[in-house]
Amino acid sequence: MSNRQWLLAARPETYPQPEHFQLVAGDRPALEPGKALVKTLFLGVAPVMLRYMRNETEFQAPLAIGDLMMGRGVAQVIASDCPELPVGSIVQARLGWQEYALIDTRQDPPPFLLAHHDLPYSHGLSSLGPSGFTALIGLREIGAVQPADHILVSGAAGGVGSQVSQIAKALGARKGVGIAGGPEKCRRLISAVGYAEALDYKQGNINTALDQLFSQGIDLYFDNVGGALLDEVLSRLRRRARIVICGAISEYLLPREAQHRFANLQNLGRQDARMEGFFVFDYGQHYPDYASEIADWIRAGQVSPVEDISRGIETLPLALSDLYTGSNVGVRMVHVADPDPMP
Amino acid sequence: MSNRQWLLAARPETYPQPEHFQLVAGDRPALEPGKALVKTLFLGVAPVMLRYMRNETEFQAPLAIGDLMMGRGVAQVIASDCPELPVGSIVQARLGWQEYALIDTRQDPPPFLLAHHDLPYSHGLSSLGPSGFTALIGLREIGAVQPADHILVSGAAGGVGSQVSQIAKALGARKGVGIAGGPEKCRRLISAVGYAEALDYKQGNINTALDQLFSQGIDLYFDNVGGALLDEVLSRLRRRARIVICGAISEYLLPREAQHRFANLQNLGRQDARMEGFFVFDYGQHYPDYASEIADWIRAGQVSPVEDISRGIETLPLALSDLYTGSNVGVRMVHVADPDPMP
Repeated sequence: MSNRQWLLAARPETYPQPEHFQLVAGDRPALEPGKALVKTLFLGVAPVMLRYMRNETEFQAPLAIGDLMMGRGVAQVIASDCPELPVGSIVQARLGWQEYALIDTRQDPPPFLLAHHDLPYSHGLSSLGPSGFTALIGLREIGAVQPADHILVSGAAGGVGSQVSQIAKALGARKGVGIAGGPEKCRRLISAVGYAEALDYKQGNINTALDQLFSQGIDLYFDNVGGALLDEVLSRLRRRARIVICGAISEYLLPREAQHRFANLQNLGRQDARMEGFFVFDYGQHYPDYASEIADWIRAGQVSPVEDISRGIETLPLALSDLYTGSNVGVRMVHVADPDPMP
Repeated sequence: MSNRQWLLAARPETYPQPEHFQLVAGDRPALEPGKALVKTLFLGVAPVMLRYMRNETEFQAPLAIGDLMMGRGVAQVIASDCPELPVGSIVQARLGWQEYALIDTRQDPPPFLLAHHDLPYSHGLSSLGPSGFTALIGLREIGAVQPADHILVSGAAGGVGSQVSQIAKALGARKGVGIAGGPEKCRRLISAVGYAEALDYKQGNINTALDQLFSQGIDLYFDNVGGALLDEVLSRLRRRARIVICGAISEYLLPREAQHRFANLQNLGRQDARMEGFFVFDYGQHYPDYASEIADWIRAGQVSPVEDISRGIETLPLALSDLYTGSNVGVRMVHVADPDPMP
């Protein structure tokens, strides 16, 4: 009845690596009043976790050395004293990096039930979870995507970025141009991830490529990267362009004094353009609707989630560091266990 | 039957000065089919005119040396072959800097009729014209102003800035904190312009003052200035803050290589904040509604337009240069003539 857990062992100075974590075997928790005991099926990783590990976010409780590493996952309720989380249901929740967790509906953000059991549970960490919802919200609610938009996506091979072009197309817009690092990733952006064109930021002059592909400018930039590339985009905005700030992974790895200083920000005003950040969990009340929309697109073949899944809870630190070393395509996650058979 | 006109004589390298203009006496135009002949009553000036003079805007036809200087004003229709512009009506339109103009409804943006004849016609260049509409649109449509917002306004003594705090209050929000240059302007920001507090950017350390007045951060920044001050604001955003980009006068006067480079832009993403520019003429269909709303506030004493009016068309170049030398408070305009008595 053990419960393996990953604890925070050290705070990373650059990117997260295995030595920043410690795997321990604790006891499986007992059910408590008002709570549900869940068995972890999948655990996700996200670039923002580096900021949790460094205590850089304002919206998360501080994470101390020796604390259970925070993270969301998909889990099966195996015992419950919580009517909203019945035994056998599949939830997406803040589980922490562990095999079993006690959860309740007072968590902020609260757990949500996966409703589309005809689709793989892993999708609860990709298209049917916050990363897919982030792509949808960013494109539609923040980016006000239009059919004729010329769309550029940075971090296009990443967890969110790998969903943006497909969802843009499902929303009636064109496929996007995706930016990623390396020829193999760029090849996959087109063959598997649904991009019309791929730009390799490690190869040649990306500005020349942007000039060619966006000769009339960029209408919608879905940004996962920040930094100098964002500045280049700011200089190429069309009138009433929209920049959706989803992430700025290039900045997370740099000390403040080394971060990019933007020369073209005032072009936002000149082009009557908009730049906006958002927090997916502010849209929690809409999750069931978003999940139904995206599930229908998956069933219709319009959206094909690209998932990069390693097996075993011991692979979690590596999964996280993969996000920073740039080696994965799609939504990176870890398969922890299969669900228990239910009566 | 003469028609005095100001022509562009030279392109400014820094700010517009009298030597960049030439006053000539032409002939008063004859009425043409489909057009209206109007007599200029007031002419307005705006910081963006420097960009017209330098051909830096994309939305205006190029202005050649020797061309009539562009500009909007309030005028009386004195002869008409245009049913939408009947004789005796008062219009706000692109007149150019001249005493008489031929206008028609095919101009882009088109003329609009002043509907509230119980109020001074000069208001057609302040609260009942694009500068007042800019304050309203910026606060409400772009800034989504909320009752509890802590509001900061740069260029608070200027044509648009002098209207922002009053309109914010009329919209149910708090008065703003205004930034202007010099103790006399700051005194007037509070006594006449409707600001709760005034910050003198020429005196002391504005960052310390911002720290004190916005200890919990800034919710809404109405920016007329751009540059280093905008960067300071970016570092002080509250969650879901909004930056309304109305102008960037600090940048207009600088060559590109001297323009500010922004260190704190990524904070926009961290705070799930928004930054957006807009073009008042995109909202033309709503002008009658905006004018009615603001006219009601004026009648109720909630909005008191602050107008800085010099007399005589010969004062136009000086009126424009005043915007850049920072000597005026309120909407700067020139009174050109009184209306003809109408039968």
